[in-house]
Order: sequence, then C-alpha cells, then structure tokens
Amino acid sequence: MGDSRAIGIFDSGVGGLTVVRAVMERLPWESIIYFGDTARVPYGIKSRETITEYALQITDFLLQKNVKLLIIACNTMAAVAYPAIKLRSPTPVLDVIDAGARLAVAKTVSGRIGVIGTPATINSNAYARSIHRYRTESFVFSQSCPLFVPLVEEGWFNHPITRAVAQEYLQPLLTESIDSLVLGCTHYPLLKPLLREVIGGSIHLIDSAEAMAEIAANILRLENLAVTESSSPDYEFFVTDIPHRFQTIGEYALGRSMTNVKMAKI
Amino acid sequence: MGDSRAIGIFDSGVGGLTVVRAVMERLPWESIIYFGDTARVPYGIKSRETITEYALQITDFLLQKNVKLLIIACNTMAAVAYPAIKLRSPTPVLDVIDAGARLAVAKTVSGRIGVIGTPATINSNAYARSIHRYRTESFVFSQSCPLFVPLVEEGWFNHPITRAVAQEYLQPLLTESIDSLVLGCTHYPLLKPLLREVIGGSIHLIDSAEAMAEIAANILRLENLAVTESSSPDYEFFVTDIPHRFQTIGEYALGRSMTNVKMAKI
Repeated sequence: MGDSRAIGIFDSGVGGLTVVRAVMERLPWESIIYFGDTARVPYGIKSRETITEYALQITDFLLQKNVKLLIIACNTMAAVAYPAIKLRSPTPVLDVIDAGARLAVAKTVSGRIGVIGTPATINSNAYARSIHRYRTESFVFSQSCPLFVPLVEEGWFNHPITRAVAQEYLQPLLTESIDSLVLGCTHYPLLKPLLREVIGGSIHLIDSAEAMAEIAANILRLENLAVTESSSPDYEFFVTDIPHRFQTIGEYALGRSMTNVKMAKI
Repeated sequence: MGDSRAIGIFDSGVGGLTVVRAVMERLPWESIIYFGDTARVPYGIKSRETITEYALQITDFLLQKNVKLLIIACNTMAAVAYPAIKLRSPTPVLDVIDAGARLAVAKTVSGRIGVIGTPATINSNAYARSIHRYRTESFVFSQSCPLFVPLVEEGWFNHPITRAVAQEYLQPLLTESIDSLVLGCTHYPLLKPLLREVIGGSIHLIDSAEAMAEIAANILRLENLAVTESSSPDYEFFVTDIPHRFQTIGEYALGRSMTNVKMAKI
C-alpha cells in the first residue's frame, strides 16, 4: 500500500520544473502536484514581505490538495520564506537551498564555494548560512545574476549574449579560486552547458534539483511516506497564468511533454 | 478655480514614471496620482486575460481616488485592456499607444515605421492598427524586445551587452529602411542614448511619453478639466511592492527625487 498522496512542489514560475524532473526520475512511482506562480513571476526582485505572503498562499493551496511532502523548488522563497512555510505546514517541508548546500559541502575540497542566484536569494545570505551549518570552515562567494532568468525565458540558452553576461557575472567568483559553484536558482540548470564553458572543466557545478530528489527519497523512506505499490502516478501542473513561451520553456525544463496543465486562482 | 482633482497615471512598474515626468513638465500645476504594480511586474509576458484583470483592478483603485483623467502609461495594458478600461471609466482615458501612433504618423515621411515593445504589446498588433487609423498608407515593422526591461532594471542603460542585445533585436527593422522607430514600452526611453547609437542619426525616435503629455494638455483644456489657479500640486506614488533598486530606477525615470511613495493593496 504505502502513502499514495502526491508530493507538492512549487516555484515562482517554470524553473521549478527542473526539480520536478529530477524527482520524477528518482521516484518514478510518486504522484506530483506542481504549482508555478507564473502570473507573478519573477519573485527574485520583490521585497521579503511580498515573497512571504505569496509563498504562504501557495503553501495553503497545496496543503488543501492534501500533499504528503512540500518541496520549495524556488530558491527565492526558500531563502526568504522557509521559516514561515515550515510553521504553516503539518507535513514535512524540504527546500532547495538546504539541498544545494549539503551537496556543495559534500563535493568541495578546498571549502571555497561560489553561489549564484537572484538578488533576493543572494541578499538573504541563506546559502552562506546553510553551507556554514554543514561545514564551519567554508568560504562562500556570492553573486546575484538578475539577467539569467529573463535570458532563459527568452530561450537564449546558448546565445553569445548569454555567454557575455555569464562572463561578466562570474568573473569575480572565478578570481576567488572556487572549486564548486552552486546554481542557486531553478532556472540556471538550463544554462548548464554554457556555464560549464565559462567556468572551465575543473569546478563542480552544484545542481540542487538532483540533490533535492535524493533528499526527498530519503525522507519518504524514513517517515514511511513512500508509495510501495507500483501504481501509475498522477502529474498535475497548476499555474496562475499561461505566459509567453510557457509550454516551450516548461517542456525544456521538464525534459518531456507537459499535459494536465490547469489554471489556479490563489 | 478649475478642476483640482488629480490625473491618474498607471503602469505595470516603474517605467510609467517617464510619462509622469513628461506630464509634470508640460502641466506643472496639475496633481498626479501614480500607480505602479511593482509586485506583479512585468506584464509583457502575461496572458491577455490576466493583463485585463489586473488593469481593471488598478482602474478601480484610481477611480476611487477620484481622478479626473486616466492615463494608461503601460503599453502592454493599453494594447490589451484599453477597451475594458474605457468601458469601466466615467472619466476620459488616454493611452500611450494612441499617443505614440499619432506622433509617429506626424513625423514619418516614407510611412515606414518600426515599433519595438514587449511580446504582449507586439503580439496584440495594437500599434499597427493605431498607426493605420491615422495614415492608411503606412508600413509597420514590429519587433518584440523582452530583454530590454530586465536590462533597464539591472541598470545597464549604457552597457556593451545592452548594445549587443539592441543590435540583435533592431537589425531586422533596420534592413526595412524605417524612418521612424516607436519606443513602444515606457522603459525604453531610458535606453534612448544607446538606441540612438545603434540606429544612427537619421531615424526619428518616437517617445510616446512626450506625445502623451501634449495630448493630456489638450484634453484637459477641451473638457474644461484643467487647474486654472497656480496652486501647488500634490504628487502621490502608489506601488504594490518596493522591489530591488526601485528608488534608483524610479528616480532615474522621473528625473528627480521621489517622495510620498505608499504601498497599496489591490
């Protein structure tokens, strides 16, 4: 039998679908309800108060759908609103920042770790705190990259202009001799090949989506929440708007076609 | 005496402050209430339904403030929601698209007019319709430029990457031998010096903010709505969020310091 309730995964937009993809691949029997607040994306430049208010609205929506686990796929919400979400939720809450920090600490040798994210994520300093929690002797170098999300949404995954922007943003981190770079925004895995080119071959690229899938598998097992029957899972995708290029970017992030997309009011 | 009620000017974010600036300069005795929906910016990639719903919420907010004239400073809302706003409002409604179209038709010689804007504005084809209304023999060439707003919000008004993006976006228009280029988004006037460089000296740059101020002055006179006493005007700025770099970009757009900024819930 097991627990057949769905896992709730949410993000400010389509970026969190990279986390959905990783969870689908690691936990192929689990049902997933995704929520992307596409009408109000991007969150990364909003104030802390507004981000927290919106995050709690989404939390309530997913709790009403009776999810057994909440995954905050949005770095901005994780950085700013995790304590408020945790307080609101009777089910376990996982967040990408904790997942990314753990993976970075596992991979780094020198302890010199770069973090890139939206202004809200970087300004919150949540990655540095989380990384230091797992390894006291760490040196975290942060850089906000506000243009990466619009560049991904333009579909310029491998465009010379995106490369030039990446060079400009990453230069200060590269001069600090980091050995690991955390992709602190769910949109950024879509830029992985380009970022790999810019940073060279020797720096670990830390993709928290993959780390998150592993942590989710562990917690489902530990808390006896996993599906044990090999039943066919349901995937539902709720969005607050169907914006420009939604389907294209969504399916690129998800790595497969996306059906069962529904509009939600919150 | 005259009519001392304020003019209501609204936009999805800070860009509409370029219209406020032009109206302040043309009508220095008039009070202005500005509304910028900074929590939900950008509108340009949202669906028509969502844009219309948000536009009507803002319209109601300003009508409750008893404004005597509504100015839609946001091209996206003008392109998509003008009919709905017009229907809702008992006071006159002006929109930047009509203003920009009129000025473009006044300036063009060849009738070959370029228009740049957000995806929603360009997809609506509102500029082409408006331009053809004033001059049947026109040839309109449109290009959406989704990265311009984030580049302006990053503060990269005169950055080599912004120049490269502009070259990429504008090349197709330049090969059509346009003699006028409409800046179909209120953020774009902030890129004027850079755009001037990219398009060369002979193409008219049509800034609808200036056109709008002139049209507003005319309608106030014709409808007997102008202030006639030289009283000191009030300026109020309502926003739905105080986002990253709001004050800096706002004051750059407005050309002066911005006080009396208030948070609004709609």
